[in-house]
Amino acid sequence: MQESDLVLLDGEILSREEAARDIFDRGGCFGDGVCALTPVYNGRCFALLPHMEQLFESVIAVKIPMVYMMEELVDFHEQLLAATGEKDCLVYTQITRGSGPFDLAFPEPVIPGLFMFTVPVDREALAERRKKGANLVTKEDMRWQRLDINNIDRLPEVLAKQEAVVSRAFDALFVRDGKLTETTESSFFIYKDGILWTYPEGPLIRKNITRRLLKERLAPDLGLQIVERAFDKDFAVQADEAFICSPAVEFMPVTKLDRAFINEGKPGPLAQKLQQAYMDFVLKECPSQHEA
Amino acid sequence: MQESDLVLLDGEILSREEAARDIFDRGGCFGDGVCALTPVYNGRCFALLPHMEQLFESVIAVKIPMVYMMEELVDFHEQLLAATGEKDCLVYTQITRGSGPFDLAFPEPVIPGLFMFTVPVDREALAERRKKGANLVTKEDMRWQRLDINNIDRLPEVLAKQEAVVSRAFDALFVRDGKLTETTESSFFIYKDGILWTYPEGPLIRKNITRRLLKERLAPDLGLQIVERAFDKDFAVQADEAFICSPAVEFMPVTKLDRAFINEGKPGPLAQKLQQAYMDFVLKECPSQHEA
Repeated sequence: MQESDLVLLDGEILSREEAARDIFDRGGCFGDGVCALTPVYNGRCFALLPHMEQLFESVIAVKIPMVYMMEELVDFHEQLLAATGEKDCLVYTQITRGSGPFDLAFPEPVIPGLFMFTVPVDREALAERRKKGANLVTKEDMRWQRLDINNIDRLPEVLAKQEAVVSRAFDALFVRDGKLTETTESSFFIYKDGILWTYPEGPLIRKNITRRLLKERLAPDLGLQIVERAFDKDFAVQADEAFICSPAVEFMPVTKLDRAFINEGKPGPLAQKLQQAYMDFVLKECPSQHEA
Repeated sequence: MQESDLVLLDGEILSREEAARDIFDRGGCFGDGVCALTPVYNGRCFALLPHMEQLFESVIAVKIPMVYMMEELVDFHEQLLAATGEKDCLVYTQITRGSGPFDLAFPEPVIPGLFMFTVPVDREALAERRKKGANLVTKEDMRWQRLDINNIDRLPEVLAKQEAVVSRAFDALFVRDGKLTETTESSFFIYKDGILWTYPEGPLIRKNITRRLLKERLAPDLGLQIVERAFDKDFAVQADEAFICSPAVEFMPVTKLDRAFINEGKPGPLAQKLQQAYMDFVLKECPSQHEA
């Protein structure tokens, strides 16, 4: 699984070597920018417009002047996929406040930077993992308090994820003020007494299109009620089931939290049902070639 | 005040164009790295070893393998100053976890990235500003809770500083849980009833060599006692004096906080005395050419 050698920089498809970034780009100097990660199935972006709307919201939140139209960003995604030939991957899109003097205050004028590349994803390995479920380890949530802005910086997530990997866990689950928030890249849900529980939307968790799809489409379709209320680990380990969801992992059952098993350590039927419903939804928008 | 066209990348002096960064560098992708900002007077770095020790502490905290010796980093600073011919500036040094697949977990192996450039500083403008003092505006402190790690990301500081600039303030002063912490780039002190007060060292404020110099050398020399205890705005505006200090601004009196004047809006004698003591200290280490 290697990145493609082709990337998109400021609207142009270039090789990785040609596409080198300016050393004074504020993305690299200050983390001064925002990003999106869009899943691709069968050569097509899934839920690209919602992903780009979220990106625009972040761009507005950090006051970067938006010089790209929605249509252009859609076009760039298509160009990148056509150029790389990638069919199943993620597309990472980063918009920065461009280059300027090394000064915290905004440069004048701001000429935003854009770069995009494809990120490989091993969906077979994820499907295999789904059969036994994922184990999570809790970590204190030290992140900033505007996580609703999809900013570039992921250092807290990098450190937490690495600690999880070292302790042979699938991911780290953040805990803020004693409440479980989310993992380094996914929303966390538990299913208990017929109800789905998750941390409330707001500045203390990331925006997540898969979570939104669950809330707006999959849960209503399956007659599931979602309660957005913070809960602690003791409450979570007594759940009937738990799972995480995101554009990168789709729906993944969680069978162990620190040293405690959930559902006796077995993947539950609901996570499986949601994964199926999600894939049905995905394949309607991104049909495989022979079905298209 | 323009950046020099010469920068240092992975130990090599290059022009800005030659020195372009890899698009997959984790500094630019995840904010996965740490940095230092060292002041230069008369062509020499001031307190370079303490600055580099702080950088090493951050490198260790984020588990980047340290491939550069202290002597090499000192040498790189000297090379960069010699190449650029800069005499009065700051040197920005960034160490990242290098390039790798787009994955939160550490790449294997980690080959750290290093880049350095000089940053212009207008010390005459700062001296002029010192005569009337700086006004600060308070902003909620939304930053992460490991500020003792000097990580790359400065987006919260960028947004707060820009809001300060727009409201014609010198800088923004962060407030966490009702207590004044620090500005976007300096420590904040008040002087009251013969005692200096400041927010306690720890994970909720940045490390700052000028603060450390004040605590370890200047304050003892001047017979000043420092109390590290959190305080709120009401307490601060009743102070006899207030000031901020950092390698970039040195010592700067604060005469206004939001709408309230401090010391009737006039710079106080202590900030002036500290600035003088600081410059005496600096010039011993970095004498001007004709004194050397």
